[in-house]
Amino acid sequence: MTGLDHTHDAALRSWVPGADGHPDFPVQNLPLGVFSAADGARRAGVAIGDRILDLPALLAAGLLQGEAALAAEAAGETLNPLLALGAGPRRALRARLSALLREGSAERDRVAPLLHEAAACTLHLPAAIGDYTDFYVGIHHAENIGKQFRPDNPLLPNYKHVPIGYHGRASSIRPSGTPVRRPRGQSRAPDADAPSFAPSARLDLELELGVWIGPGNDLGTPIPIDEAKEHIAGYCLLNDWSARDIQAWEYQPLGPFLAKNFASTISPWIVTPEALAPFRIAQAPRPAGDPAPLPYLLDDADQRGGALDLQLEVLLVTPGMREAGLAPHRISASNACHMYWTMAQMVAHHTSGGCNLQPGDLLGTGTISGPDRDACGSLVEATRGGREPLRLASGEERRFLEDGDEIILRARGICEGFATVGFGECRAVILGALA
Amino acid sequence: MTGLDHTHDAALRSWVPGADGHPDFPVQNLPLGVFSAADGARRAGVAIGDRILDLPALLAAGLLQGEAALAAEAAGETLNPLLALGAGPRRALRARLSALLREGSAERDRVAPLLHEAAACTLHLPAAIGDYTDFYVGIHHAENIGKQFRPDNPLLPNYKHVPIGYHGRASSIRPSGTPVRRPRGQSRAPDADAPSFAPSARLDLELELGVWIGPGNDLGTPIPIDEAKEHIAGYCLLNDWSARDIQAWEYQPLGPFLAKNFASTISPWIVTPEALAPFRIAQAPRPAGDPAPLPYLLDDADQRGGALDLQLEVLLVTPGMREAGLAPHRISASNACHMYWTMAQMVAHHTSGGCNLQPGDLLGTGTISGPDRDACGSLVEATRGGREPLRLASGEERRFLEDGDEIILRARGICEGFATVGFGECRAVILGALA
Repeated sequence: MTGLDHTHDAALRSWVPGADGHPDFPVQNLPLGVFSAADGARRAGVAIGDRILDLPALLAAGLLQGEAALAAEAAGETLNPLLALGAGPRRALRARLSALLREGSAERDRVAPLLHEAAACTLHLPAAIGDYTDFYVGIHHAENIGKQFRPDNPLLPNYKHVPIGYHGRASSIRPSGTPVRRPRGQSRAPDADAPSFAPSARLDLELELGVWIGPGNDLGTPIPIDEAKEHIAGYCLLNDWSARDIQAWEYQPLGPFLAKNFASTISPWIVTPEALAPFRIAQAPRPAGDPAPLPYLLDDADQRGGALDLQLEVLLVTPGMREAGLAPHRISASNACHMYWTMAQMVAHHTSGGCNLQPGDLLGTGTISGPDRDACGSLVEATRGGREPLRLASGEERRFLEDGDEIILRARGICEGFATVGFGECRAVILGALA
Repeated sequence: MTGLDHTHDAALRSWVPGADGHPDFPVQNLPLGVFSAADGARRAGVAIGDRILDLPALLAAGLLQGEAALAAEAAGETLNPLLALGAGPRRALRARLSALLREGSAERDRVAPLLHEAAACTLHLPAAIGDYTDFYVGIHHAENIGKQFRPDNPLLPNYKHVPIGYHGRASSIRPSGTPVRRPRGQSRAPDADAPSFAPSARLDLELELGVWIGPGNDLGTPIPIDEAKEHIAGYCLLNDWSARDIQAWEYQPLGPFLAKNFASTISPWIVTPEALAPFRIAQAPRPAGDPAPLPYLLDDADQRGGALDLQLEVLLVTPGMREAGLAPHRISASNACHMYWTMAQMVAHHTSGGCNLQPGDLLGTGTISGPDRDACGSLVEATRGGREPLRLASGEERRFLEDGDEIILRARGICEGFATVGFGECRAVILGALA
């Protein structure tokens, strides 16, 4: 494990009420985002407990210097220019924020007035997303989906050689809390001669992580695998909503299109690589017989510490549960370690032909399912294509999502000797299709 | 034919030298773009003959009023805000420009100093492209490609029901003239057990038209087919460079990715729907037995006049031809009428599930091949997958593109009784792969 410093100490305490022991945002996390308070002005902020620290106000108060000030100055209504600066200013900002917010800080009285109650603020997309790419690196997901089409040969021949990815739609990505309208679209029933156009009857979620791109590269200049992690500015949760009936009909030969571009939901905080340093682990060894990655995808340091041990959860709230006052029902528990390729391999592969990544671009991992039935990152997996419904604590069943259902994704690093660090929520409720 | 007015009269003459009879930019065209002159400042311009009219200078000179002024005021370093205004201001600007630039204009002496020599200017992307989507509506292309995989059943079952499309990469789109670096990438030779990583050996072009989106729609609010054309702000040429060896290995199951995202080239002028009004034709009737479009894709007016009669050409210049001083060799002549779906159907389908289009988004048609061998919009079609090389006037052969080759795309509306209107060139030269 590398890159650990005093900002990670489990013993660190914060003077901000509720920050110590907060399941997501203790002083060891300090994720970056964009929020607005009552005046409506969008600005950069840092989550700490149930509060948001106003970054431009901190700068205006003269509490940031040097590279930390440079980072805060770059942050405007979007964080793209901050992401572009790379790791140096981001780390300097983290170190300074940690010093200002910890117990015993001499600046407590100057910082305290710059905190907002998060519950009274609106969170926005943290960056203007130029391009969004979704990968397919969750191998159990690829196997589960593949089995539904090819029981004896679930993985295609390229899967263990190529970090499979495709371009997605940037314009329809929304922050947690924005409702998702059930799409209408073309699909063809298994027994029908012709397709029909109707509201999707097989609406699904996908549990993914998002990767925020930092400096990026010029067109024609690939990012080598051993430099790839320097271009990762942070992480978020990503729900890649999918209309399975539309997808099945449209996806040949060029891939998913309307089945996925009607909405994607992300958690609004950028959790930095620094905050996740305690949860870095070695990439799981490939099973015997699997090919070694080609040299452009292979880096010793990445293999030793390029994976993340993050606990992932999917929770469901149905209208019935809401009315009965029941707690969200956890329908899946997975882990970010179930990725066949690392984030750095995704970056190196994406740019290997010369494609340019830009600050604020977003990469999705693809659905991260675990090996077990209760670790599926989508309903189409958990219900075996809708044939075996989930039974909920409320006594209800679900094959796919119904109107009024709400999905909540969570991600947390939980590791002996370190404070728990979380991503906050990625949630959205399903609205009925337009008439 | 609708929407024709005095700005289309073949008898219209311009006082700008060389504009009358110009193969692309007579006074009947007046396409919009972004250019810089010696001072390097990016600004909006209008092509007229071999000159570019400086739009902000025209505004500053007090020569625009009302909606025409509104359009010019919106245009900054990109045309996105102008495109967002929709047809009204765009048409007002066209009418005023036509009046100012035609023979006999009382303002000639005030306008003439605002013209730049195009040859001394640099043309840029006309808009910041938020999202780029590529369709697959050239049915002869789909058949030609399909035959290489499935000789007896080239079209997949969805093709005649769904305007097939997929998301592409916006960040790597460049204006005509920007060289294209041959990508390196993974591919697997037909007789190999494992893939290798090497420069693409099957580099190809794709002849497409691009559609610039105007006002667009809010997330969750589809654009009905009968309103779709109001959201089309103009057209360009698009070369969707494709590495066929990389594509064949990577594209299952999620579609093309690195095979196409290393570069796309567009012609830099936005040719408006107004300029193309004389070349609107009825959509070709579907062959007997083909399904009717579903209602959300069917509009009488669109069927009567939603297709375009534009002559399309692909020209090749090899290093050998360049050295010998030979003219470009035309390797294909096609027509925009060979689209199974109209541009309006592309827009309506794209938004039918709620996906939002934004001003400056770009839609590609997909490769537009004609029914004949000399009308193929890509080399993989023209050479039957590389098996039957093209023989060039220089005595050379080509299966795929070689380093130093230059591809030039052209599009022109040529119609008895009207001035010829063209798109200008979409050209780029291939650079050797990085070592």
